[in-house]
Amino acid sequence: MAGMVEKRLEELGITLPTPAAPIATYVGFVQTGSLLFVSGQLCLADGRLVAKGQLGAAVSIEDGQAAARACAINLFAQVKAALGDLDRVVRVVRLNGFINSTSSFVDGPKVMNGASDLVVDVFGEKGRHTRTTVGVAVLPNDAAVEVDGIFEVA
Amino acid sequence: MAGMVEKRLEELGITLPTPAAPIATYVGFVQTGSLLFVSGQLCLADGRLVAKGQLGAAVSIEDGQAAARACAINLFAQVKAALGDLDRVVRVVRLNGFINSTSSFVDGPKVMNGASDLVVDVFGEKGRHTRTTVGVAVLPNDAAVEVDGIFEVA
Amino acid sequence: MAGMVEKRLEELGITLPTPAAPIATYVGFVQTGSLLFVSGQLCLADGRLVAKGQLGAAVSIEDGQAAARACAINLFAQVKAALGDLDRVVRVVRLNGFINSTSSFVDGPKVMNGASDLVVDVFGEKGRHTRTTVGVAVLPNDAAVEVDGIFEVA
Repeated sequence: MAGMVEKRLEELGITLPTPAAPIATYVGFVQTGSLLFVSGQLCLADGRLVAKGQLGAAVSIEDGQAAARACAINLFAQVKAALGDLDRVVRVVRLNGFINSTSSFVDGPKVMNGASDLVVDVFGEKGRHTRTTVGVAVLPNDAAVEVDGIFEVA
Repeated sequence: MAGMVEKRLEELGITLPTPAAPIATYVGFVQTGSLLFVSGQLCLADGRLVAKGQLGAAVSIEDGQAAARACAINLFAQVKAALGDLDRVVRVVRLNGFINSTSSFVDGPKVMNGASDLVVDVFGEKGRHTRTTVGVAVLPNDAAVEVDGIFEVA
Repeated sequence: MAGMVEKRLEELGITLPTPAAPIATYVGFVQTGSLLFVSGQLCLADGRLVAKGQLGAAVSIEDGQAAARACAINLFAQVKAALGDLDRVVRVVRLNGFINSTSSFVDGPKVMNGASDLVVDVFGEKGRHTRTTVGVAVLPNDAAVEVDGIFEVA
């Protein structure tokens, strides 16, 4: 039986993917006390990158926002796998947004809003998070965006 | 009535700015248990970037240090907004320093000392923090430095 | 008397170095509650960088993996200095891996496995951690890899 958060995801037409199985010896999430740490999520949907390459070059701001949104959905999938029910999230504490950028692309925050806006749309007030957005030289598999997160859980 | 930490800021001639209002759906700080997470702070003072562009190119080490110091002041402003009194900080736990750098600029730690030294000057022994300094391709608005932080609070 | 984790290090022929003394006003570790934060560790061994420069240019994947492994050993040294006994680690919660990369080097995760694999080899199941791997423009002293970490401790 779906909770409030998952009802909102349904309204938005978002189906959570099976969380990406880490390829190596790391895992998708670790809970310690009331904090749930989630590994960096690439902008994958249906096993493919939503956007590949650099903002400021091959990737437009709009495509970057869609990529950041996909990262957020993958974070939700990890949290769902960890907790069973997304309603157990008490607060989204931190998102770190890494934007694959040329050195002249200064609009990382606009891109990262693709993740932040969805998180608040889905979680409401408890979705209001701290964040740090930086432009990096490259990301795994040349993904355009990677986002990790820390959640307070009940 | 100002506490010890704010007295020290006064001695240093530092007036805390109104904390930057996040432009998007994220917030400046979130407290979870005894941990206060603060969003990445750019090197803004009086609404302008203290230093713009890359270390190793347009920005000198000295200007980078002034920029890192400004980030620290903006962190203090967020902590003040969160706690009311900076004396409620039990320990500065972590600073992450992101230095807008050409790929040949290897002195990020010297730049980041502009933040670290002020934090310890202001908070004393409880200001001794862990930190990670990396050189990134670009930062929002082409800021020279961005710093985020985690604080233990009473 | 060595604990289980240190016995495993011994079997692997790994001697923990004296943890790098921070050059500035920051420190190698801070414990807050049950969380131990460790500062970013460069790929140093015997006071020299294991690999210097960028992945995708001067540094091969194999050398990058050795560099990431050295970062992990330096993290262990900090944890040992903090706790006295590595067996007091309950869980490795998070590793952040920063890979000094050209903008075309997309195999950061392979490099970071040099750290992740050793952590799991040494700590077993409690070594299974979340992680975020990004490719950065440059690192302090032109180190090829930097890794920081968060540990849950008893």
